[in-house]
Amino acid sequence: MSCDQARQLIHKLQSLNPTLHNSDFLLTWDQTDENLRAVLLVAEILENLYAANVSTRVFDAGLAVSNFRDQSTRTRFSYAKAANLLGLTACDLDESKSQIAHGETVRETANMIAFTAETIGIRDDIFLGYGHAYMKEVAAAVDEGFRENVLGQRPAVINLQCDLDHPTQSMSDLLHLQSEFGSLENLRGKKIAMTWAYSPSYGKPLSVPQAIICLMTRVGMNVTLAHPEGYDLVPETIEHAGRFAEENGGSFTRANSMADAFADADIVYPKSWAPVNVMQERTELLKSGQSDGLADLEKRCLEQNRSFMDWQCTENLMKQTRDGKALYMHCLPADITGVSCDTGEVDASVFERYRLATYREAGHKPFVIAAMMMLTRTRNTADTLQQLIDKGTPRRPS
Amino acid sequence: MSCDQARQLIHKLQSLNPTLHNSDFLLTWDQTDENLRAVLLVAEILENLYAANVSTRVFDAGLAVSNFRDQSTRTRFSYAKAANLLGLTACDLDESKSQIAHGETVRETANMIAFTAETIGIRDDIFLGYGHAYMKEVAAAVDEGFRENVLGQRPAVINLQCDLDHPTQSMSDLLHLQSEFGSLENLRGKKIAMTWAYSPSYGKPLSVPQAIICLMTRVGMNVTLAHPEGYDLVPETIEHAGRFAEENGGSFTRANSMADAFADADIVYPKSWAPVNVMQERTELLKSGQSDGLADLEKRCLEQNRSFMDWQCTENLMKQTRDGKALYMHCLPADITGVSCDTGEVDASVFERYRLATYREAGHKPFVIAAMMMLTRTRNTADTLQQLIDKGTPRRPS
Amino acid sequence: MSCDQARQLIHKLQSLNPTLHNSDFLLTWDQTDENLRAVLLVAEILENLYAANVSTRVFDAGLAVSNFRDQSTRTRFSYAKAANLLGLTACDLDESKSQIAHGETVRETANMIAFTAETIGIRDDIFLGYGHAYMKEVAAAVDEGFRENVLGQRPAVINLQCDLDHPTQSMSDLLHLQSEFGSLENLRGKKIAMTWAYSPSYGKPLSVPQAIICLMTRVGMNVTLAHPEGYDLVPETIEHAGRFAEENGGSFTRANSMADAFADADIVYPKSWAPVNVMQERTELLKSGQSDGLADLEKRCLEQNRSFMDWQCTENLMKQTRDGKALYMHCLPADITGVSCDTGEVDASVFERYRLATYREAGHKPFVIAAMMMLTRTRNTADTLQQLIDKGTPRRPS
Repeated sequence: MSCDQARQLIHKLQSLNPTLHNSDFLLTWDQTDENLRAVLLVAEILENLYAANVSTRVFDAGLAVSNFRDQSTRTRFSYAKAANLLGLTACDLDESKSQIAHGETVRETANMIAFTAETIGIRDDIFLGYGHAYMKEVAAAVDEGFRENVLGQRPAVINLQCDLDHPTQSMSDLLHLQSEFGSLENLRGKKIAMTWAYSPSYGKPLSVPQAIICLMTRVGMNVTLAHPEGYDLVPETIEHAGRFAEENGGSFTRANSMADAFADADIVYPKSWAPVNVMQERTELLKSGQSDGLADLEKRCLEQNRSFMDWQCTENLMKQTRDGKALYMHCLPADITGVSCDTGEVDASVFERYRLATYREAGHKPFVIAAMMMLTRTRNTADTLQQLIDKGTPRRPS
Repeated sequence: MSCDQARQLIHKLQSLNPTLHNSDFLLTWDQTDENLRAVLLVAEILENLYAANVSTRVFDAGLAVSNFRDQSTRTRFSYAKAANLLGLTACDLDESKSQIAHGETVRETANMIAFTAETIGIRDDIFLGYGHAYMKEVAAAVDEGFRENVLGQRPAVINLQCDLDHPTQSMSDLLHLQSEFGSLENLRGKKIAMTWAYSPSYGKPLSVPQAIICLMTRVGMNVTLAHPEGYDLVPETIEHAGRFAEENGGSFTRANSMADAFADADIVYPKSWAPVNVMQERTELLKSGQSDGLADLEKRCLEQNRSFMDWQCTENLMKQTRDGKALYMHCLPADITGVSCDTGEVDASVFERYRLATYREAGHKPFVIAAMMMLTRTRNTADTLQQLIDKGTPRRPS
Repeated sequence: MSCDQARQLIHKLQSLNPTLHNSDFLLTWDQTDENLRAVLLVAEILENLYAANVSTRVFDAGLAVSNFRDQSTRTRFSYAKAANLLGLTACDLDESKSQIAHGETVRETANMIAFTAETIGIRDDIFLGYGHAYMKEVAAAVDEGFRENVLGQRPAVINLQCDLDHPTQSMSDLLHLQSEFGSLENLRGKKIAMTWAYSPSYGKPLSVPQAIICLMTRVGMNVTLAHPEGYDLVPETIEHAGRFAEENGGSFTRANSMADAFADADIVYPKSWAPVNVMQERTELLKSGQSDGLADLEKRCLEQNRSFMDWQCTENLMKQTRDGKALYMHCLPADITGVSCDTGEVDASVFERYRLATYREAGHKPFVIAAMMMLTRTRNTADTLQQLIDKGTPRRPS
């Protein structure tokens, strides 16, 4: 059953010409439509093979290195699971246990960790203006290393969240939408409200809303972005979203209130993030190690947040959505009023109604990451997948 | 030879009806006799296959997640070894590196770490009244996740030590006794003295003595528990021990001195633990983050301990045991007088005589954990084991 | 092509009688010439099989335990890669997360971590006079454990850097030299300058220069050691170097300046290390936990270093080497003037010219460690390697 499904998806995959082999996955907006489509297809195929208990261990050895420069549970585990699904061994670079502190160059470290590595997953979302640049630097370093015979293979750099994009999240979100609405085609013309929401916390990255507006406009959705004054996103992502909407037959609009964004929405994604100027100031303070300034900035930021406490995803607001039944989405963990905080992004009853759906949304991530690993690290991914089915090794005893 | 032995044990296993599949291993006293017997048999089979250099890699992929909420060497390594023996990849949830701190619900975290996980091993022995409850909460969460199609499989929660029980330890201890005395049957009527012993340390969990009195009474042993006033165990475990003694033809008695407990004992298990009221007070202080109170409590506890410095397993006391040759047991590390502390649980000469035996005792643990993993995660464990022998893949080059 | 090469090397390996099986790799000077030759050959064979995409997974299960008592990136990753190449699972003993702090004996811990372990890699280079002793203690403990039926196999202790030697580094360096000069035979009579160099840091171990002078004299090279007064090495290593030079037809000489050492050198290895008396004082202070004394010692050491700021590997000095083209070597990370520090061991332009070469030098380490693992843990290493080629399982999809 699931194998039949997988075979059909492999057939679709064969009609695409992805260009990810020996490359990286950093920003969705730098990827062709076929690359994005291929990642979704391979993730779906892997999910089907998982359900059919067919082993997807395509590597007999190899490391999947990771470097988390910010805390992570979900993505850390998703990366480890993706590696395990494919037969790679996850190996985390803990910068605090290394000699990296003292002036070792990024290009040197990149090569040192990359002998026998197939992938390098990086989370670097704390420093606005630096995270994506760091990933590009690592990619350039392993490129040189491969070219100059330092490395026996070209490890793929996979963005596990940077200052600009969070592609493993947004691609999982898209897979979730495809599953909930039946097909990618069915998403055309659907309205998704990506809105800021109040949280009693500070400094959440901008990468999720940026990822969502830049990806959902690619599939012809009508994307509405809403946030209080001062909570703008990085301008380049706004431009991409506008362009993609135009190119793909959807729309990208701005709203000044949650209510406007929620009106007739098919999907809502209410989530807190930090004001862009706070993130910039924070980056400077972190880089120069000024902890006094950071404490003061946090205080000001939380005060500013409090001015917008009415930006909450309440039952009343949900009633304004399409038939009162918009799909609620979140990258988790959500700040749930009365559950994880006194007042937060979402009413407890709203969250509870969609709780299991958000878990399923998150459940796509290991497979999306594995898909990125396969497409960057195998030349004929469709053939390799077909061979897995033909071989039919059980993943586990029944 | 070892394969022949394994075949005979598989034959025995086939006559049992264990009910562990898609379930958890939390407390031995909630398990049927057949379940306990099955765990011992599977552990023995795996030990034989290990010795015969037959690969026991039954999983081609899958994670064995762990969450150690207290320090651990032995059990951490035993869990990693068990996972490795079966082909699973150990993956530790380091709560300090995660976003869990801020109000994320247990049920959410449980699902987030469980996509593709076969087992979740948990150590949570610090908080009296909470450890077992936490494990049940995780088990309920993955139960819901599996039922509601969030998870593709139902990961088994395995208790790696809680506030009530330490089943991987006590089952290893039982396997050790079976090996030392020739059979489980030979243990009937043997006297085991589970006694408190002096240690210059503070706050050792109650789970080991509780585990021992509740498990050894299951196999018809005469269990004597001895401790100074105030060092009582959790009442429910005393009740279980009494009931099991009655049901299984052994006895459960209390003694007020080490000497009384040691008299004619076949086995002695002298070990320090904290007074139950200290553990309760400590739990409250830890939960409310009162470090001053903790320091004061530690001081009082250590003073109280010093009143019972004569509770030491000395050569003289050992002479009172059966023929002066009782088997000395310990879960390690022991507080050895003149070796690891000035005055501790056991005389250096006593410990040295049984040192290698205690190492062998510990050596069963990886196999016991692997047995729990197999019985919870494979439907026909006996068949799966038989197939391993038939296949006969070498674990390593000879 | 690479497989043909591997076959020829296996043929050479068959003519050797290495004695490493069921033993350890601690100090190169305690190893026979054939053992060293065998390690180099197996490393080369593994490199060829890696390039030919032939799986070298000789273990179906088993742990490669590590214990890093000092910071490490390169060696930590190299050890994990070596384990992965052979099918072992790396498992790090984090002493801060264990119960080891309180008086647990080394022999006990060694056995506890060693059930199912094939190797135990240890870095212990901080304490002069203790690191090697610690490794021998661990080796003796697992020897007893294996003999006394505690362990099912005898794990090999592998020195990942101690106070005396750094064999995985020096053997990688030698493989690099073999590759750069065409053969081991071509190294005879070549001059290598192992010289101290200025660094604005403190307390770098002596093990690299000691490893180099003791190993390169084994292959008939002319080794010159140069350092400022007070920066002597441990006397025993000087004696070994002298003896090996005599036995193998090379020479071991001392020089008082970098210029003298560099004159007509074919290879230069300029690197900072701490004065031996500082390391001794530091060891005492660390052992007794005197942080005030440590700060003062660091201050004095850095001052002493500054007296020798002219010990830098400059372009001018490089001109004094053979045809001005000596091969520059470094174990990395180097202190590069104007790159990783204001003034350091080497001019930026010199380092840049050899940068990729130093990366390749480091790239041998995973294979050298894997070779040590194979030779200590397989009885007929040549046969086992031959079987890998015959089987020809691809390591990864092409």
